[in-house]
Amino acid sequence: MEKLKEDVTDIVALLLDEKKYADLKAILITMNAPDIAILMEELPEPRVPAAFRLLPKELAAETFVEMSPDSQELLVRAFTDVELHAILDEMYLDDAVDMIEELPANLVTRILRNADPKVRVAINELLKYPADSAGSIMTIEYVDLKRDMTVEQAFARIRKTGVDKETIYTCYVTDRNRVLLGIVTGKTLLLSEPNTIVGDIMETNIISVDTSEDKEVVAHQFDKYNFLALPVVDGENRLVGIITVDDAMDVLQDENTEDFSKMAAITPSEDSYFHTSVFTHAKNRILWLLILMLSSTVSGMIISKYEKAFSALPLLVSFLPMLMDTGGNCGAQSSTMIIRGLALDEIRPRDFFKAVFKEIRIALLCAAVLCIVNAARIMVFYHDFRMVIITCSTLMCTVTLAKSLGCCLPMLAKLLKLDPAIMASPLITTIVDACSVLLYFNIATRVLSL
Amino acid sequence: MEKLKEDVTDIVALLLDEKKYADLKAILITMNAPDIAILMEELPEPRVPAAFRLLPKELAAETFVEMSPDSQELLVRAFTDVELHAILDEMYLDDAVDMIEELPANLVTRILRNADPKVRVAINELLKYPADSAGSIMTIEYVDLKRDMTVEQAFARIRKTGVDKETIYTCYVTDRNRVLLGIVTGKTLLLSEPNTIVGDIMETNIISVDTSEDKEVVAHQFDKYNFLALPVVDGENRLVGIITVDDAMDVLQDENTEDFSKMAAITPSEDSYFHTSVFTHAKNRILWLLILMLSSTVSGMIISKYEKAFSALPLLVSFLPMLMDTGGNCGAQSSTMIIRGLALDEIRPRDFFKAVFKEIRIALLCAAVLCIVNAARIMVFYHDFRMVIITCSTLMCTVTLAKSLGCCLPMLAKLLKLDPAIMASPLITTIVDACSVLLYFNIATRVLSL
Repeated sequence: MEKLKEDVTDIVALLLDEKKYADLKAILITMNAPDIAILMEELPEPRVPAAFRLLPKELAAETFVEMSPDSQELLVRAFTDVELHAILDEMYLDDAVDMIEELPANLVTRILRNADPKVRVAINELLKYPADSAGSIMTIEYVDLKRDMTVEQAFARIRKTGVDKETIYTCYVTDRNRVLLGIVTGKTLLLSEPNTIVGDIMETNIISVDTSEDKEVVAHQFDKYNFLALPVVDGENRLVGIITVDDAMDVLQDENTEDFSKMAAITPSEDSYFHTSVFTHAKNRILWLLILMLSSTVSGMIISKYEKAFSALPLLVSFLPMLMDTGGNCGAQSSTMIIRGLALDEIRPRDFFKAVFKEIRIALLCAAVLCIVNAARIMVFYHDFRMVIITCSTLMCTVTLAKSLGCCLPMLAKLLKLDPAIMASPLITTIVDACSVLLYFNIATRVLSL
Repeated sequence: MEKLKEDVTDIVALLLDEKKYADLKAILITMNAPDIAILMEELPEPRVPAAFRLLPKELAAETFVEMSPDSQELLVRAFTDVELHAILDEMYLDDAVDMIEELPANLVTRILRNADPKVRVAINELLKYPADSAGSIMTIEYVDLKRDMTVEQAFARIRKTGVDKETIYTCYVTDRNRVLLGIVTGKTLLLSEPNTIVGDIMETNIISVDTSEDKEVVAHQFDKYNFLALPVVDGENRLVGIITVDDAMDVLQDENTEDFSKMAAITPSEDSYFHTSVFTHAKNRILWLLILMLSSTVSGMIISKYEKAFSALPLLVSFLPMLMDTGGNCGAQSSTMIIRGLALDEIRPRDFFKAVFKEIRIALLCAAVLCIVNAARIMVFYHDFRMVIITCSTLMCTVTLAKSLGCCLPMLAKLLKLDPAIMASPLITTIVDACSVLLYFNIATRVLSL
């Protein structure tokens, strides 16, 4: 596969060099838009517009939507006004809005100038919704039916208007004020008699979302209810748009990526790895690195208070990495399980005590096993029973503390309406480190009677 | 919302207590299957079968599919043979197979005995596919058309057979040997004239997957191409089933959960947090904790070799947590970005050097900022220029090393066909710890001329 892709890129570059446009076009039209988009990203920049112009109108629009913001900008700059108009004409409105949000202002002006007046108004309307809202990912291209239509009339309407709609498989029944009355699926319509009244077969027990609803919440509705599309309504229950499953899937993937970033102490970014500059990558990472570096000096300050202890028994210092790492790993395990459970709605804020109780029991089990192995190791290599007492009691406390904190902090964040993902491994490790160092030297001074 | 759900649970329990079944049924039938399933999970176990029996047949099957394996088992045990037959009759085959895979053997025998002979054969057929293959998540209930049918005949066939099909929005055109010739969407059929020949409007440039394809790869195809369904073929390109977008979304979410677990050094489990016992949780976590605990003793052994250094300058020890934590955090950031990029196909194995080069530049930028802040802090609090030299040069090396390893190890895992997610923060932290401790004391002994 991998090898094949490289070959195709080489062939395309060659055909462009030799200006064999007809052959190239013959290859491109057998491909799917997402694959053509990947291919275009691999071509040298100056060649992209030439290759893109070979695509038939519809495939061109589909490919354009799949390309990275950088390549879209490159193309928009290269397009004539006529070409720009043609592409906009073929694009779904929600895709056009997504693109516009990424482009510099002067190109946006040019795009809006080249759009049909109706499209321009619709785009401006959609641009008003906040970035993370249901409104920002919806499209206004849906099939609307009336309650008193027959199935036959419904099909006539779908045939007339359906070609430009993002989906025709879920149709929306509205009254004259655009208030959403019901939905009827293409399957129901197809399996009903032609003279059936739409109002009699529509589903009225509808799940809809408000334009201001968080898009992540919307994506989870798709995951939970297996929808193909979901209606978006305003405060008066008037239908303003629909969200389709492909957009929901993108949101779900973006949200997962965001959680991965946050949990690794990185400020999330929307761009892909290679489309983000070194400087931006560094900027996204440095803030948390600084915060965590400075807070880990607390552990250092605690250590320096116990100079006497580790001067008396230098072996004490050599168990620090083991204790700190194990505490960090235990915290990482619990916080990850809890953060993921909260994201998937498997754990709810009211399960707080149930979860903490569970984590404490897990911690005791894990700590017991770790202590046994640790004690055996120390007795075999160092024959020092005092170290067994000191390290095992510290381990016991650290593991329990790490797992409790790993459970409590994300849940508290959720209760405070913060994102639980920031309460992940790096932060918890830093807190647990300080506590375990304090515990360790305290226990050590007592056992060694210093 | 949260409050409302609790209220509903209380009301349902109350209605069950007072045997007000008609009222309860009236409430339940206004709800969606996933919500009823959640409600059932909250009821006391002995009440679940009584509540479940109130559901109309179709809703009962839909609800059953959404329930946890434990509750499904509880219900199957409570069902009479007639009830079991009725539920099986309403379920899609892929859902029935998913359920059977989770049940104990004696219940499976009972289920198969109560299924229609045709269904039994189909279930047995599907059970043969390996757990992570496309075959294991596909359904065999699709609409198949013939190439020489007219659109009108196609609709007649959809009307006749469509009610039991998982989707009617993508239809599959096969020849008499079931070889897949093309696909035609419901939209195309609806927008075509009744006497058009299916063979003329079908899409022949089809993306299909093999029954043995990894289900994660399949899920990514949905994400990339925005499909609603994908055909599954055997070695001879014969159509054996289809996979629908809702199942692909589930696979995508499961895969993300699996990555989160692995990256936190947890053996992944398929069950939800509260459906997994304390013992199983502990078992899933202890293996990596032990491995990492034992490997972190390497850092300890290195430290104990440098007793002389930290006896001479005890302040050295107090910077250990800062150095180890920062190294760990830097490694976590890089490995997370690379693992996620590989999972999303944004980073490919052949980008190895490009990625390493990028990470090194990011590392140098981050390290520079960290060193400046660290130097300032030490000069203000300790006025010790030697410590500035020692800690900053160690930081510089540790950060660069951590980010390079965080980049290389997941990519190497990918090249070796291993899962990159195991090369995540905990493992990298342990390796970086050992290296940074070694570097630190080496630099220290040189600077302090010990």
